[in-house]
Amino acid sequence: MTKAIFYHAGCNVCVDAEQQLAYSLDPKRFDVEIVNFADAPGRIREAEAAGVKSVPAFVIGGQPYHINFGASMADVKGA
Amino acid sequence: MTKAIFYHAGCNVCVDAEQQLAYSLDPKRFDVEIVNFADAPGRIREAEAAGVKSVPAFVIGGQPYHINFGASMADVKGA
Repeated sequence: MTKAIFYHAGCNVCVDAEQQLAYSLDPKRFDVEIVNFADAPGRIREAEAAGVKSVPAFVIGGQPYHINFGASMADVKGA
Repeated sequence: MTKAIFYHAGCNVCVDAEQQLAYSLDPKRFDVEIVNFADAPGRIREAEAAGVKSVPAFVIGGQPYHINFGASMADVKGA
């Protein structure tokens, strides 16, 4: 199983991407975790360490994949 | 089945996203098509009509999801 973490911040762009993509990975191959920074601000550091610059974003196998643009990590930290 | 089209242009960012995401959707729920504009320039118009501004990008259920940034559609058309 490959670990896939979907980071978001509750924004409209995030929610749409969550519904269309985050739950769409093959459950036989991916262990998907959804992280909302509004609920889990303690996860911001790990996301940034993985290269996440904006949300929504996936980190799959340690690599960041930014999906469209909802908010920058600076916005997230300032919220 | 939901139609999911992954558009790319052969760039490094595209190839990585293709390997990590395009083939990762649940095959029970998604009918995935991979389109390389280098091979299929005739597909550029439909991608732009769906809202694709850069590659790599998914169009899932008619909605565009840009993944990181490889090249703009202007770059693709100028190539």
